[in-house]
Amino acid sequence: MAELSPSRRIRRTPFSEGVEAAGVKAYTVYNRMLLPTIFEGTEADYHHLKSAVQVWDVACERQVELRGPEAGRLMQMLTPRDLSGVVPGQCVYVPITDETGGMLNDPLAVKLAEDRWSISVADSDLLLWVKGLSNGFRLDVLIDESDVNLLAVQGPKANTLMARVFGDAVADLKFFRFGHFEFEGREMVVSRSGYSKQGGFEIYVEGTELAMPLWRALFEAGADLDVRAGCPNLIERIEGGLLSYGNDMTDDNTPYECGLEALCKPEFAIGCIGRDALLRVAQTGPVQQIRPLEITGGKVPLCDRAWRLLAGEKRVGQVTSAVWSPDYEVNVAIGMVRMTHWEPGTKLQVETPEGRFDVLVREKFWAR
Amino acid sequence: MAELSPSRRIRRTPFSEGVEAAGVKAYTVYNRMLLPTIFEGTEADYHHLKSAVQVWDVACERQVELRGPEAGRLMQMLTPRDLSGVVPGQCVYVPITDETGGMLNDPLAVKLAEDRWSISVADSDLLLWVKGLSNGFRLDVLIDESDVNLLAVQGPKANTLMARVFGDAVADLKFFRFGHFEFEGREMVVSRSGYSKQGGFEIYVEGTELAMPLWRALFEAGADLDVRAGCPNLIERIEGGLLSYGNDMTDDNTPYECGLEALCKPEFAIGCIGRDALLRVAQTGPVQQIRPLEITGGKVPLCDRAWRLLAGEKRVGQVTSAVWSPDYEVNVAIGMVRMTHWEPGTKLQVETPEGRFDVLVREKFWAR
Repeated sequence: MAELSPSRRIRRTPFSEGVEAAGVKAYTVYNRMLLPTIFEGTEADYHHLKSAVQVWDVACERQVELRGPEAGRLMQMLTPRDLSGVVPGQCVYVPITDETGGMLNDPLAVKLAEDRWSISVADSDLLLWVKGLSNGFRLDVLIDESDVNLLAVQGPKANTLMARVFGDAVADLKFFRFGHFEFEGREMVVSRSGYSKQGGFEIYVEGTELAMPLWRALFEAGADLDVRAGCPNLIERIEGGLLSYGNDMTDDNTPYECGLEALCKPEFAIGCIGRDALLRVAQTGPVQQIRPLEITGGKVPLCDRAWRLLAGEKRVGQVTSAVWSPDYEVNVAIGMVRMTHWEPGTKLQVETPEGRFDVLVREKFWAR
Repeated sequence: MAELSPSRRIRRTPFSEGVEAAGVKAYTVYNRMLLPTIFEGTEADYHHLKSAVQVWDVACERQVELRGPEAGRLMQMLTPRDLSGVVPGQCVYVPITDETGGMLNDPLAVKLAEDRWSISVADSDLLLWVKGLSNGFRLDVLIDESDVNLLAVQGPKANTLMARVFGDAVADLKFFRFGHFEFEGREMVVSRSGYSKQGGFEIYVEGTELAMPLWRALFEAGADLDVRAGCPNLIERIEGGLLSYGNDMTDDNTPYECGLEALCKPEFAIGCIGRDALLRVAQTGPVQQIRPLEITGGKVPLCDRAWRLLAGEKRVGQVTSAVWSPDYEVNVAIGMVRMTHWEPGTKLQVETPEGRFDVLVREKFWAR
């Protein structure tokens, strides 16, 4: 692998100092910000995440905030998910679509109040889309990237560690709910969420002042829990079926293709920008859809581009994420498969830079 | 430096194969695409760029195309530059601003026809901004990221090399003009432009089919010219005063702060989104502005964040790009300086992670 050249354009985070001290070996760039990808090694980080607890610098999940009398209206314009029943205090995963129903982002959004939403954006400049729409439609909403930096605490021992720093009540938080908890005299929003299936929390750290103190407090409180710096893990996220915007789907794909049909209610999503196109897709369902794929025949190479998925010599889809899983002793993968070949049990092949491998379409992801 | 983790989300380019074979050592990520930053070394690459000719994979300059009856109107909405006199066949550098006059991008745009523009975007999702506006204002324009990949040929021997591949006529192209030239029976748009002061061209390669054949043809034709794979060079671009969006300016800054006042005519830019705010700024001029800065006292460290610029203990600006220049034997730098301290000859200090260095505000960049 080549190195990543630092520059101001690739933004550091308020936790970068801690990440560097912990010996980060590799990064990716996410929303033009540093996102660690490897500390000890992808497999070592994976085993640790599944057995202990990790602190993740996920400040790259930038927060786009909508405030004002038309914030709710604008929010509903962004997504085919019906938001009419969402109450303040709730987190929702919202596919965001353009006018043709193509996915522009797949963030977690928090309804802070009737007139206030905060969106944790995946890797695209959602801010520009939202501001462009708001300008064009002349909506009465303030739109900002707020100075909030997320720190995630993930792993089976996350409850224990968080309770030591924020008090026992934090362990009572239900999935996808948030609460306010105190750290060094300041209130912080903490949600039970995160980009792993090991359980855990995301802490919304306002500004930079308390960022490193919080980082250090978590490490001090968790020394006996073997707490380490970590990051979203490629193996663990594929096993758990956590999709990655830009990898597993792009603006070429509708939410239906991404298996998010349960979240799409274009018939109720009044004002949703992609509504017309998505109502059309909903009539018949998508032609291709994301599937968990098992790849056999040895470890696959690093998946840095879409690999063609073949039935004989016919292209029937593509693999977009793939990696060897030590726990399942198989390559776990995510791909987009055409409906003619998406039934569980279908046998296909995938073309990688290191040759062809056998593929089995699975019904479910490995970990749920 | 840490490594960059490859994934599909960080897009490869049709020239990546050539870049890898040439031994690329480091990348940055630009518009979620790989942009090489180092081949032999920043200084070695710099000396070579200034003396020979390089081929650059700048496919990351994604092309946003506007087509349709209202393409010209939308284009003018994006920028305070007066586009009324621009003729088909002309390239223009266009600061693009949001509703408060903050810079969202600073691309080169090409007017292909009365109803067709192509924008070579700097590192932000301009596509989302443009599509959001077009949706909101219900404009009659098609907006796409087109499958066009730029290859730049830069350096004092660029004319010679390009004439060998595209014919002598290409050497007659005037600065910021483009023409159509043939390669392997296909027409390609070639412009005299590029992100260096050494002179050269940018070739708009449609699709992927001819990408590597063109790459190889340039290397075969230029063997005796010592042609090498290269990339925008940090030292050379600072010496020449080439600004970098995301580094030297962000959406916090107006075009006036970026020294682009000569390009701003908000009074004539009818429909420009940032017009009101920019008319206000134009009344008095900006409070801070980009300046070339000379930093002395030894080589500065790598500039990966904004460094505070100080007059005594008072913050009077920031340095956003800085590097040692072998040719000028000084650290060349770009910074944003408040008007109280921006006069050429002003002595300041800059706070870097390796301590303070002396700074001199210069009148002009080193190379023009």
